Amino acid sequence: MKTFETVEAYRPWRKGMLAGARIGFVPTMGALHQGHAKLIRQSMSENDVTVLSIFVNPTQFNQKSDFENYPSTLVEDLAMAEKLGVDAVFAPKLASALYPKGYRVKVTEDILSKELCGAHRPGHFDGVLTVVMKLFNIVRPTHAYFGEKDYQQYLLVKEMVEDYFIDLKLVPVPTEYESSGLALSSRNARILPEHKIMAPLLHRAMVEFDRVDDARAAVEDAGFVVDYLEDKHLENGETRRFAAAWLGDVRLIDNVKL
Amino acid sequence: MKTFETVEAYRPWRKGMLAGARIGFVPTMGALHQGHAKLIRQSMSENDVTVLSIFVNPTQFNQKSDFENYPSTLVEDLAMAEKLGVDAVFAPKLASALYPKGYRVKVTEDILSKELCGAHRPGHFDGVLTVVMKLFNIVRPTHAYFGEKDYQQYLLVKEMVEDYFIDLKLVPVPTEYESSGLALSSRNARILPEHKIMAPLLHRAMVEFDRVDDARAAVEDAGFVVDYLEDKHLENGETRRFAAAWLGDVRLIDNVKL
Repeated sequence: MKTFETVEAYRPWRKGMLAGARIGFVPTMGALHQGHAKLIRQSMSENDVTVLSIFVNPTQFNQKSDFENYPSTLVEDLAMAEKLGVDAVFAPKLASALYPKGYRVKVTEDILSKELCGAHRPGHFDGVLTVVMKLFNIVRPTHAYFGEKDYQQYLLVKEMVEDYFIDLKLVPVPTEYESSGLALSSRNARILPEHKIMAPLLHRAMVEFDRVDDARAAVEDAGFVVDYLEDKHLENGETRRFAAAWLGDVRLIDNVKL
Repeated sequence: MKTFETVEAYRPWRKGMLAGARIGFVPTMGALHQGHAKLIRQSMSENDVTVLSIFVNPTQFNQKSDFENYPSTLVEDLAMAEKLGVDAVFAPKLASALYPKGYRVKVTEDILSKELCGAHRPGHFDGVLTVVMKLFNIVRPTHAYFGEKDYQQYLLVKEMVEDYFIDLKLVPVPTEYESSGLALSSRNARILPEHKIMAPLLHRAMVEFDRVDDARAAVEDAGFVVDYLEDKHLENGETRRFAAAWLGDVRLIDNVKL
């Protein structure tokens, strides 16, 4: 497995690929779990080569403490990637590798990016779109894999790919859940022991109640502080139930198709 | 000479290029003049293939009337391109070809884009950066040619190319002037006959006066309405004098290195 810390190191490797090669790409912020493993496995089954990126993107954090406390497990991540058979890892050590001149030119969206998580995390999706555009230009994948747990993120990246004629196939991958019902997330590592038993109630309430207000009441009764829990009709015709809720100082998100 | 009206039509042609081919790109809004011819000739001398785009980008016009009155001379443009030996022209007829879902996801910049022309044309440079990013993704050039008459635009595109790791060489091409001293521009066609004789005074004042205030006074005395005329130190260490001024309802811009 190749590992690259800079754009300059990665590029010649990418240019060595044949023109028709299928290059799968799984962008992550590290702290890899079985949700990421699922993305990686799907990429490997559908492509000639799979590239994983590990970069905790500072511009998508609206709270400094969340950025500083974001779990970092690079040694374990690289071991997992190698074991899964990833071909190359792009893992810049410094933020300046992707922001050499700072955060000057941004990619923004004014509608969907202001709703749901966007309403509670100002600037979050600008940071996401900006770094994903950079990563696409660097990695140059033919296929890119995004987890459905961050469904709003997937929809926004899809808008960007369409609007900018980015020549790749975007592949959404269904969320991976613990047997308890808790959606896998890197932030789960920060859930306090006394909160563990409550955490799966978010998902359970989302699927068990028909009325969204009942689901919200159940989640609040369980001790969550809810940012939002709402049903949303999407452009593609489907309806999804989206939620974000705090358990102590850990923010959990989830969504289900209705 | 190939001409393409849609992304779908252009792409297979581009994919037929060899991996190492040098693809020069000259993006324009049509109404071609000798300034464009200079860009095209330079691209042709430095590349295997030259692609010209002709697209009057609606999102970079802050005034509807300026957009509607922008000169359109497609038949003559194509004849000139063919005569110069351009290999391919990408000329979408409809705005929807580049904005199929509207103007949703934007590229923005908050510092340089708010100064000079940006201070007088709100949203202008967002529209420019957005369409140039799209065109780069579609055309996939190895070299892209921008006229120095729009020097602020060149600097902003340079920021975008650097920040987004766009894998091409950006080439600024010096402004082409009439013997009178008037910088060539597609908008010159709209200068009223009675204003023609005054038009070259903008450039002459910019180069003849040491003090920028004296230059501005001379331009105003000549009958221009000045948007700005100022000296600016640039990141690269050089100082340039930038100006935008109205002659009737035609806005002229120019800049000179000091």
